[in-house]
Amino acid sequence: MAKLNLRPLDDRVVVKPEDAESTTAGGIVLPDSAQEKPQRGKIVAVGPGKLMDSGVRGELSVAVGDTVIFGKYGGSNIEVDGVELKILRESDILAKVL
Amino acid sequence: MAKLNLRPLDDRVVVKPEDAESTTAGGIVLPDSAQEKPQRGKIVAVGPGKLMDSGVRGELSVAVGDTVIFGKYGGSNIEVDGVELKILRESDILAKVL
Amino acid sequence: MAKLNLRPLDDRVVVKPEDAESTTAGGIVLPDSAQEKPQRGKIVAVGPGKLMDSGVRGELSVAVGDTVIFGKYGGSNIEVDGVELKILRESDILAKVL
Amino acid sequence: MAKLNLRPLDDRVVVKPEDAESTTAGGIVLPDSAQEKPQRGKIVAVGPGKLMDSGVRGELSVAVGDTVIFGKYGGSNIEVDGVELKILRESDILAKVL
Amino acid sequence: MAKLNLRPLDDRVVVKPEDAESTTAGGIVLPDSAQEKPQRGKIVAVGPGKLMDSGVRGELSVAVGDTVIFGKYGGSNIEVDGVELKILRESDILAKVL
Amino acid sequence: MAKLNLRPLDDRVVVKPEDAESTTAGGIVLPDSAQEKPQRGKIVAVGPGKLMDSGVRGELSVAVGDTVIFGKYGGSNIEVDGVELKILRESDILAKVL
Amino acid sequence: MAKLNLRPLDDRVVVKPEDAESTTAGGIVLPDSAQEKPQRGKIVAVGPGKLMDSGVRGELSVAVGDTVIFGKYGGSNIEVDGVELKILRESDILAKVL
Repeated sequence: MAKLNLRPLDDRVVVKPEDAESTTAGGIVLPDSAQEKPQRGKIVAVGPGKLMDSGVRGELSVAVGDTVIFGKYGGSNIEVDGVELKILRESDILAKVL
Repeated sequence: MAKLNLRPLDDRVVVKPEDAESTTAGGIVLPDSAQEKPQRGKIVAVGPGKLMDSGVRGELSVAVGDTVIFGKYGGSNIEVDGVELKILRESDILAKVL
Repeated sequence: MAKLNLRPLDDRVVVKPEDAESTTAGGIVLPDSAQEKPQRGKIVAVGPGKLMDSGVRGELSVAVGDTVIFGKYGGSNIEVDGVELKILRESDILAKVL
Repeated sequence: MAKLNLRPLDDRVVVKPEDAESTTAGGIVLPDSAQEKPQRGKIVAVGPGKLMDSGVRGELSVAVGDTVIFGKYGGSNIEVDGVELKILRESDILAKVL
Repeated sequence: MAKLNLRPLDDRVVVKPEDAESTTAGGIVLPDSAQEKPQRGKIVAVGPGKLMDSGVRGELSVAVGDTVIFGKYGGSNIEVDGVELKILRESDILAKVL
Repeated sequence: MAKLNLRPLDDRVVVKPEDAESTTAGGIVLPDSAQEKPQRGKIVAVGPGKLMDSGVRGELSVAVGDTVIFGKYGGSNIEVDGVELKILRESDILAKVL
Repeated sequence: MAKLNLRPLDDRVVVKPEDAESTTAGGIVLPDSAQEKPQRGKIVAVGPGKLMDSGVRGELSVAVGDTVIFGKYGGSNIEVDGVELKILRESDILAKVL
């Protein structure tokens, strides 16, 4: 995938979801439960952070390249150069994979 | 389209949605999923920003001429000189296309 | 219509909706979509602005005489001297027509 | 009606709704629409104003003797000495009749 | 009724609702409408006031001995020494009877 | 019951609900109404208080040993050494029994 | 279980739920009621705390190694190296077991 020409607004990030197979390598399996279905993916673009009442933007806790776990039903799906991506808010991200 | 004679209030913007065909050129395809349908368009007018508790207006992150991706179901549809436009809040905009 | 003897409270305004025919003159047509139906009208009275936590009132962005576009389903309909008017909050106004 | 022995709390007011007939005199007719039904009445008692976070009470924009327009379905109906009254919050009042 | 051994928390009060008959004496009749049914009663205990963000407690506008009008469906019913009482928040009280 | 080895978080408390019989002794009977069912119990553990925006924790109004009245449907039921307990937030407590 | 390679965001924690059998040892039994089902588990990872308006992060009240009680239906289930874990917000934790 060529360099992404998308800049998310506020505290949004663009994530490239991983295939179910690739998750086995990292040791984390995300079961297909009925309760909630978190997914794993890599961050490919981040926004400038949420504008706070004080007028400054809150720094994001995640960066481009991070692998993260997020709720499957959050965000919006888009497709860039044939690649399926997801635009999420940082609050939809549950954890970073170290 | 002649110069737009509309001034949105607060953090609203006026967007001219692109046709589905034109999106192929920019390399971004927005699939027609059941979950949510983001759209792509060009900003033709912006408001002065949202009035914050401090009494100042928050500066918008987007400007006239920007191409943006936004949720299909947000905002209100209007028609100016035969052109279909959309009035959105900035928070309905997901990302800017660079 | 004689001078309006109504003073809206807070950030409310009184709007005289335009007939569908008159909107053609200004070049803006508001289509009758199922999603949302914005309307066009002229402001005939404005309130003092919303009382903020700081104790001052936020200045309104619209004034008597402005032509505005607003959501059809917001506000309350009243009738003064046989004229149908609408009392709206400023937040129900989408844009000013310049 | 003798002097009212009711003191509303916070930003509440007591209103004596006018009969439909009396509204014709003032030039304002409130149509019986299905969307919302504002009513007209005279304020007979006011509260001390809403206690704000700063610890002071916000001054009311209406006073005893004012004629106001308010949403029909807001507030609570009570009866004092055979007179039907309504206890409303100031935010339920749409406009003052000058 | 002996001295009440209950101390409400925050901005709650304990009210002894009056019987429908006793309300005639004070001149206020609370009709049994379908819309909402306010009730009249005497305050028998008050809380220390609501803890505000500033760390101080907001002073209550009502005191033990006050007769008040309140919404019938708010609060919780309890019984002390065979007497039916109601625990309400101050915000459920519409007005004080002078 | 031995010393309780539970420390509630924030403004939560652990309450040991009293049996219906024991409430007769204190003079307070909590009727089984359909509207809401408050219960009586003794506090056996308290949290450190709710963390406020200022960074300090709000002091609780109740302490271990207090007898309190609380809404029956709030909180979570747990069982420690065969004793049924309830974990509540302080805001679910209506009043303290003196 | 090897060292966990997950870093939760904000005020989230990762908890390893205990089996129903192990809870008997600590003396706390969590009954299977229909109202709500709290669970017991050990914290295996914690986030940096919630970012507050002041710009600092609120310190968590729990730490890695703590045994906690939490609502069964909160959070998201994931699986790491064959171990079922749960990602919760600190506010979903009811109490710490001392």
